[in-house]
Amino acid sequence: MIRTLALGAAALAAAPAFAQSSVSITGIADAAARQVSNTGLGSIKSLVSGSNSTSRLVFRGTEDLGGGLTASFHLEHGIALDTGLPTGGFWDRRSTVSVAHRNAGELRLGRDFVPSYTGWSRFDPFSYVGVAGSNNLVSATPNGPIRSAFGSNPNTTVRASNAVQYLLPSGLAGVEGGVLVAASEGGTAANGQHKTIGARIGWAGAGAVVSLATTTTENNLTSTGKFKDTAVGASYAFEFLRLSAAWRRFEQAGSEQTNTLLAFSVPLGVHEIKGSFVRAAFGGSVGATALDANGVDQVGLGYVYNLSKRSALYASYARLANDGAVASTIPGGPAGMAAGGTSTGFEAGIRHSF
Amino acid sequence: MIRTLALGAAALAAAPAFAQSSVSITGIADAAARQVSNTGLGSIKSLVSGSNSTSRLVFRGTEDLGGGLTASFHLEHGIALDTGLPTGGFWDRRSTVSVAHRNAGELRLGRDFVPSYTGWSRFDPFSYVGVAGSNNLVSATPNGPIRSAFGSNPNTTVRASNAVQYLLPSGLAGVEGGVLVAASEGGTAANGQHKTIGARIGWAGAGAVVSLATTTTENNLTSTGKFKDTAVGASYAFEFLRLSAAWRRFEQAGSEQTNTLLAFSVPLGVHEIKGSFVRAAFGGSVGATALDANGVDQVGLGYVYNLSKRSALYASYARLANDGAVASTIPGGPAGMAAGGTSTGFEAGIRHSF
Amino acid sequence: MIRTLALGAAALAAAPAFAQSSVSITGIADAAARQVSNTGLGSIKSLVSGSNSTSRLVFRGTEDLGGGLTASFHLEHGIALDTGLPTGGFWDRRSTVSVAHRNAGELRLGRDFVPSYTGWSRFDPFSYVGVAGSNNLVSATPNGPIRSAFGSNPNTTVRASNAVQYLLPSGLAGVEGGVLVAASEGGTAANGQHKTIGARIGWAGAGAVVSLATTTTENNLTSTGKFKDTAVGASYAFEFLRLSAAWRRFEQAGSEQTNTLLAFSVPLGVHEIKGSFVRAAFGGSVGATALDANGVDQVGLGYVYNLSKRSALYASYARLANDGAVASTIPGGPAGMAAGGTSTGFEAGIRHSF
Repeated sequence: MIRTLALGAAALAAAPAFAQSSVSITGIADAAARQVSNTGLGSIKSLVSGSNSTSRLVFRGTEDLGGGLTASFHLEHGIALDTGLPTGGFWDRRSTVSVAHRNAGELRLGRDFVPSYTGWSRFDPFSYVGVAGSNNLVSATPNGPIRSAFGSNPNTTVRASNAVQYLLPSGLAGVEGGVLVAASEGGTAANGQHKTIGARIGWAGAGAVVSLATTTTENNLTSTGKFKDTAVGASYAFEFLRLSAAWRRFEQAGSEQTNTLLAFSVPLGVHEIKGSFVRAAFGGSVGATALDANGVDQVGLGYVYNLSKRSALYASYARLANDGAVASTIPGGPAGMAAGGTSTGFEAGIRHSF
Repeated sequence: MIRTLALGAAALAAAPAFAQSSVSITGIADAAARQVSNTGLGSIKSLVSGSNSTSRLVFRGTEDLGGGLTASFHLEHGIALDTGLPTGGFWDRRSTVSVAHRNAGELRLGRDFVPSYTGWSRFDPFSYVGVAGSNNLVSATPNGPIRSAFGSNPNTTVRASNAVQYLLPSGLAGVEGGVLVAASEGGTAANGQHKTIGARIGWAGAGAVVSLATTTTENNLTSTGKFKDTAVGASYAFEFLRLSAAWRRFEQAGSEQTNTLLAFSVPLGVHEIKGSFVRAAFGGSVGATALDANGVDQVGLGYVYNLSKRSALYASYARLANDGAVASTIPGGPAGMAAGGTSTGFEAGIRHSF
Repeated sequence: MIRTLALGAAALAAAPAFAQSSVSITGIADAAARQVSNTGLGSIKSLVSGSNSTSRLVFRGTEDLGGGLTASFHLEHGIALDTGLPTGGFWDRRSTVSVAHRNAGELRLGRDFVPSYTGWSRFDPFSYVGVAGSNNLVSATPNGPIRSAFGSNPNTTVRASNAVQYLLPSGLAGVEGGVLVAASEGGTAANGQHKTIGARIGWAGAGAVVSLATTTTENNLTSTGKFKDTAVGASYAFEFLRLSAAWRRFEQAGSEQTNTLLAFSVPLGVHEIKGSFVRAAFGGSVGATALDANGVDQVGLGYVYNLSKRSALYASYARLANDGAVASTIPGGPAGMAAGGTSTGFEAGIRHSF
């Protein structure tokens, strides 16, 4: 009953007829045991999914149309490996169709990352996930620009639906980037419908990466001002060390949140050691509530043992400390965190790419 | 991390053992930018999925059992490429298992198209989707036989769950068709459970196609009479022009809706130009409400530029005009259409088959 | 538009580079027509999914890391082929990532079967599904240990989320088994979060199989005592006959349910005849309600005609009789069964493995 997916004899014989066909199926299965402690609340043990890299299943393919022109698709599905449940909207990690030209760039339609996310996450050595991921400092709590602009509805800090993108071709001496426009479709934030405009420009070469991105969102909750999301980052790979720094500011009406990341990564053969410091600082006010005293610091340390290019064992530790009225936590701990409390997390897991 | 799905060396060496195995994975990624205007309400821009052909992912395979006998399966999933969400019930585009004989035909179990849908949709050059699709004139509004028989619940104008089908074999000199019986399972329309019986007979050859189909449905809402759905259609391919005409009548108790389609399609090398006129006319009454004055007209024009057999760019325009108390619209426009109003839509997109 | 998934020319040429890559896509499409009659209530006809073997789609793969070490993943999705709907939580049949060593065994993280289920189901010739499956006697009705411990929420009689498992390697002279620990994550039974600990030990060889397993679960509903699930089974394959017997006891606080199975299976070339008798006996009490008079008996008979190793036609019959206050039924019949009534079911279907 167990059988490798295989081409039948007829298909093999006919292979030339399919020379342009391809569906690539890849993905990641990643799970870890985690323990998170919150100030005064004890700790909770859990099994979690995707702490080194989000568990996913990807279908994609590219057709060579000749003359440098290609058509392609990309469908990406997130999986909670701990429970077997899909995450979010099934293909909401990415669902796009594209036409591209080698020299002219790519026209891409569908749901995808916003420019500011791309311009931030590549500098996070924890890939925006796990106990030490910088995602822990991007949420609708505490109150600030993100909650003002989106409430607890789906926001555009990571992805946008209904998007039309133009992306620069490769081969521009390391220059990369693109623009994104997403339609609000006359809809509401509650339905994930936001009018979004963004752009990113970067350069990668000689061990260095620099990136500048901005994304602006309007919806039925932003009558007091658009939501602006700006991300700047850079990294440099020394001989045995990669250093990165990134800065991201969320603004809406009179409130702002500024996230700063400093990180390193040291590859030593099959070993990798990495660490990051992320700070979220709030400013301005929402209504009559001043935000200046609010902030979050997170320190993360990680170790990865690469069993192969595709598989790894890993362990990470993080400590998240709140200032002011903030009660952020590393996910997975006891509920009821008090303002100004501290959350610490440790996890060890397996990541397998297929 | 990006890797083509590939047979390992072991699998290749063992290929003869798998000579009868095959899972075919195909699909369509289709997205378009659309603008729809409704009388007195302005217009809305949106990104939409599947305007040339419904975005989908298909798993299927056939096993040759020898002696002309085969076993096969077909799982078909619809995707809203604009948002990354599944459409409907995930595999509800088709989920079937079959045993078939070359000369005796096919026994197919599971969810599939009803005969009347098959007998109509093949004559619509817009494939029942997009701004100009004839699906815009098959809905539970206005009140009429469809709403009487199904309310706003899942109906059988396209597919039926819990179906047993017998389908004629190919090789009958162009004659094709089959019968379908679906069980209501003692359930309710709200759960998509309908007792359905239908049949289709057609002939295709020498550039001509003719088809006659009928489908009858009973459920807990049809105590005043069964829902009848009859479709007749024909097409003929002249040297540079394919003409088609189709007629479909929905009846329930004292009400009826009659849809008529006239369409053409002109392939010119990599170009295709196509157009359709569809009219829905209502008659009889629902309760004390006479329907005779109600109707909808839709004119559609489309252009397809085929980049290859698999990929295309396309643009479509349609104008839908209501008569009487009807307030149908092309999907994607502003809400609040007044009875008798007009909806116009334009879209341009990319379709990639994989 | 219909195309076999194929390796492009480039991929074929590059095959050696992918020698360690593999994604295996397999599954089962199984549907049957069923009729179930309940005492005094008449009968209902239905189309059902997975009566010989659960309809499913499986993605999995193993990477050889060298030195006897492997990494692997397994994602398994259940499908209701009759309606095209996913069953349960999409990948909730299994979602795991593993690292294993040929001699040291396997560490597996994610959602999977609990030891007691594995130790029972392999002795049921109806594979725990269909009109004659022993699953008909494992449910939250009548009241007893299962309902006491889980209410009508997801329970651990089949699978557990958030599990860490160690499994013995093969090559231990037929000895097999493992241990499982699942975290409750500070959650609730309503969210499927249960603290579960279990183990299984078995032996297979010379036509015989024996197995002993136990699983213990705690959650927010088991304050009066843990839920214990113990399964013992054995089978022996004579020349033309396989006999099996199994015993499973569920206990919680003062209540217990004991299921006993006696079964046979006779393979005769492409034919297989099989039968089972299953009895559920209740004891103790829930609150003030004594359970001793409650019980269920089920007799099942099945015939399978194997069209090939992968495809089969089958038919099954079962009769389920209740004692005392129990009103269990074979699924698919009329609602409203009276206590002590009898349910009979027949089904005939197609199973195709791919």
